[in-house]
Amino acid sequence: MTTHILRIDCPDAPGLVYKITGSLFRAGFNILSNHEFVETATEHFFMRTAFTGEAAPEAVAKDLRDTLDPSAVIRLARAEPQRIVVFATKEPHCLGDLLLRHAYGELPASIQAVISNYDSLAPLVRQFGIPFHHVSHVGLDRATHEQGIHDVLGQYDPAYLVLAKYMRILTPGFVSRYADRIINIHHSFLPAFMGAQPYQQAYDRGVKIIGATAHIVTDELDTGPIIAQNILPVDHSYTAADMAQAGRDAEKIVLAKAVKLMLEERVFLYQNRTIIFE
Amino acid sequence: MTTHILRIDCPDAPGLVYKITGSLFRAGFNILSNHEFVETATEHFFMRTAFTGEAAPEAVAKDLRDTLDPSAVIRLARAEPQRIVVFATKEPHCLGDLLLRHAYGELPASIQAVISNYDSLAPLVRQFGIPFHHVSHVGLDRATHEQGIHDVLGQYDPAYLVLAKYMRILTPGFVSRYADRIINIHHSFLPAFMGAQPYQQAYDRGVKIIGATAHIVTDELDTGPIIAQNILPVDHSYTAADMAQAGRDAEKIVLAKAVKLMLEERVFLYQNRTIIFE
Amino acid sequence: MTTHILRIDCPDAPGLVYKITGSLFRAGFNILSNHEFVETATEHFFMRTAFTGEAAPEAVAKDLRDTLDPSAVIRLARAEPQRIVVFATKEPHCLGDLLLRHAYGELPASIQAVISNYDSLAPLVRQFGIPFHHVSHVGLDRATHEQGIHDVLGQYDPAYLVLAKYMRILTPGFVSRYADRIINIHHSFLPAFMGAQPYQQAYDRGVKIIGATAHIVTDELDTGPIIAQNILPVDHSYTAADMAQAGRDAEKIVLAKAVKLMLEERVFLYQNRTIIFE
Amino acid sequence: MTTHILRIDCPDAPGLVYKITGSLFRAGFNILSNHEFVETATEHFFMRTAFTGEAAPEAVAKDLRDTLDPSAVIRLARAEPQRIVVFATKEPHCLGDLLLRHAYGELPASIQAVISNYDSLAPLVRQFGIPFHHVSHVGLDRATHEQGIHDVLGQYDPAYLVLAKYMRILTPGFVSRYADRIINIHHSFLPAFMGAQPYQQAYDRGVKIIGATAHIVTDELDTGPIIAQNILPVDHSYTAADMAQAGRDAEKIVLAKAVKLMLEERVFLYQNRTIIFE
Repeated sequence: MTTHILRIDCPDAPGLVYKITGSLFRAGFNILSNHEFVETATEHFFMRTAFTGEAAPEAVAKDLRDTLDPSAVIRLARAEPQRIVVFATKEPHCLGDLLLRHAYGELPASIQAVISNYDSLAPLVRQFGIPFHHVSHVGLDRATHEQGIHDVLGQYDPAYLVLAKYMRILTPGFVSRYADRIINIHHSFLPAFMGAQPYQQAYDRGVKIIGATAHIVTDELDTGPIIAQNILPVDHSYTAADMAQAGRDAEKIVLAKAVKLMLEERVFLYQNRTIIFE
Repeated sequence: MTTHILRIDCPDAPGLVYKITGSLFRAGFNILSNHEFVETATEHFFMRTAFTGEAAPEAVAKDLRDTLDPSAVIRLARAEPQRIVVFATKEPHCLGDLLLRHAYGELPASIQAVISNYDSLAPLVRQFGIPFHHVSHVGLDRATHEQGIHDVLGQYDPAYLVLAKYMRILTPGFVSRYADRIINIHHSFLPAFMGAQPYQQAYDRGVKIIGATAHIVTDELDTGPIIAQNILPVDHSYTAADMAQAGRDAEKIVLAKAVKLMLEERVFLYQNRTIIFE
Repeated sequence: MTTHILRIDCPDAPGLVYKITGSLFRAGFNILSNHEFVETATEHFFMRTAFTGEAAPEAVAKDLRDTLDPSAVIRLARAEPQRIVVFATKEPHCLGDLLLRHAYGELPASIQAVISNYDSLAPLVRQFGIPFHHVSHVGLDRATHEQGIHDVLGQYDPAYLVLAKYMRILTPGFVSRYADRIINIHHSFLPAFMGAQPYQQAYDRGVKIIGATAHIVTDELDTGPIIAQNILPVDHSYTAADMAQAGRDAEKIVLAKAVKLMLEERVFLYQNRTIIFE
Repeated sequence: MTTHILRIDCPDAPGLVYKITGSLFRAGFNILSNHEFVETATEHFFMRTAFTGEAAPEAVAKDLRDTLDPSAVIRLARAEPQRIVVFATKEPHCLGDLLLRHAYGELPASIQAVISNYDSLAPLVRQFGIPFHHVSHVGLDRATHEQGIHDVLGQYDPAYLVLAKYMRILTPGFVSRYADRIINIHHSFLPAFMGAQPYQQAYDRGVKIIGATAHIVTDELDTGPIIAQNILPVDHSYTAADMAQAGRDAEKIVLAKAVKLMLEERVFLYQNRTIIFE
């Protein structure tokens, strides 16, 4: 039997859990896990339910659309690997870690391809049997370069794009085509050290902890909803380069975690924040 | 309006959430938060619901007792400070931290009294306006000493006993009178370093991380269900005494956390493990 | 025998450790611990040595002043509790934690007095037998208020001022009189969320980790050299008020740690960063 | 110029740092970094110095052997990648992580080969261009199997053996041939959960934190000197299998860290503990 995921967010109201679980119960579905949350400040309700059964779940979704507040967002998904395309530039650690996890079945994803604006990572990608596309930005304006990326993506129809240390800023036009579907890793503890060279910024400020942040890409640089963060302690003996090296472990782990959470449909985006049911 | 807590654990079955939320909905209660968990291995269901309303919640509990599996454990509680008595010996850090949190309203508890087998902590306790009882164990057998403690406890009727570095082993007879209601802090990362002098044991073993564990007291030393654990890094420069000093911060924070979780009725004990809805 | 601390920072040069340990050896001192660090980028040398002996250490310091680069900063101190005055406003958790540690001898400090711009913490302070001074800012301009604080400080001659959630900004004039001697706790992971209401800022940004930062106070708000930082994970279920409550544990522990490091003469300030020998 | 590492451990005595740095200074060497530690309880001195210079450092070592206590252990090494052979069984995450780090130059090692008692990891290893040797244990007694491993190792002359989830117990005879040179990763927070199936043990005990431990292999299972440990939080929703999956990240990072520390000659083994200069 297929495992389905039902996600609902809507204004809070009495009896929501009762109504929703009732719809599933009457349709003969068996609930595997259930998470709800009401944000008190905004009186908004969030629910994620994983369930199995013989029936088609679309009838439940329709039933709920008729019953719940018209503004309710109701989404159905199957619990199965999702198609992703990974973007990278020159650094191999996040990309390599995703390729390894993918290879041994730890990632709920099917990596369709890797796109890079350099070709240095081609051997790493190809040794894992994954298509590698070198789409150079050299000599191109941003729109032309992104058109080249689009042409490649057209072959793959990915559910999500994962930026594994992709060091180019995407245009609003590009982002809007994949709205809420682009996951980025930023090598700082956001909102500290946005923009370029965060480890140099961290060194100059003399922080004692550095971090990494996985977030959804929006039009504004490094300000999208945060999915996961991780940190590690540093001290005065770390140069900016030492911080960059040490930070790699935090980056790769936090990115893999965020990809997993997104692909398992555990993340709700709400007012530039995330509600996450782990 | 009072906030009530409903806690249920029973064998898993289809439609449990639907039934339970239905009972609450029909009685006119408003659910504030809701947590469920099904342990797949044992097919056992756990649920904690916080709700408000005008009605008496006992009718809902009765309704559920009639509906659910006869083995279901159904408990109602009010979300209000609970009466506790704190036990200590000579070390002030855990006790002092609890007294401070209590004084500024951070602990969901009413500290009725402190009992110690030494009198050195009396000034600290009394400066906070809390009764202090010195019940010396010197020259007494265990049963006689514990009888003295019982005599003191008789005045207070505590819901929970909190052992804040109480360095005496309680007899099974004593523990059984307060079954599942005695919270202890052990100064190691259990199950490592059970028994006496865990920091010396940690030093001798050369560990790089030390910890503290808050757990429910059972008949067997340091093996009861674990509520919370915390750790801190150490290195070769720490003597056993340095570890003990550094460990104090982990101890006091993990004990306060465990007390909060227990008193807010967030902890289910199940097969010597805990299910905790934070 | 007294334990002395020798601290040296100067441009790096061959043979520095040899020269310095030679001076101590010839004077008959016994080195207990020794830490050195050379910052490669700036070719600057830092050393902290703890040593004991019968002789007066000033001769060693003089010897080194004659030998080392004229720009060398050479400081001698005794390893003994230092006089501090603690500042607070209304929140008791950092202040209470310092009072507790002081009371049971964990802090290498002698708390001379507590100064607050409100009187609500007076009972907490006085129950520990520490003088409490209420210096209200109401109706006063900043200079007049700070003059009142100076008048109180005049009685105590503190080596360091510790701002334990003191919610007033100090003027450059005040800061300059205690240059490099004022330790502050800021309730965020600096440089994120400088200024007012950092937990509200953290909530609005949707971060998954919050923190606290102890730093030296300089003329510019929340930008002085960082001594210690700590973090704790949060999720969507935390309101800004929940973050504030959870953050208290990080705040009090990081402040106590920073005070200990400073008072034990383990912190070098250098180019708005700190070199710390733990 | 070559960077050399000088490591000394000997009974503590006055003037040791002065003598050692004097030997280096007179030979014209330039000290890059210097770490010392005296274990007070045993009055034992440890020092690691990194230095550069034109001269041959053996003269300094000889000079020190003539000067210091006859029991002093004095070792010279070059700061350069060391030859290692990695052992694995079926799990790819630790092995894959080492291969990735090796491929992009983050590991101070030259991986000569991988040996496994199964052949399932052969494709992963070979795609990185590293020799893979399948040395099956099936149907062999322990001595015969280990003889097969010896025959393979004979080609490579490794400085260290790294057990990256190698699930076979090595005999004392094998261990003694590589005494203090075999690094293992154990998938628990030692000394908790020694032996087989530590995650199942952790689940059964209901711990709230799991961990991983990298240690030197000695004759007795899981009791050798600990190099590095790391932990991650878990809760009741983790099955033993979930713990195993989550623990992989801790395992691979702690193993990589331990390998780096060992290969950079930062680890002293002393009385079944480690002194580590990071």
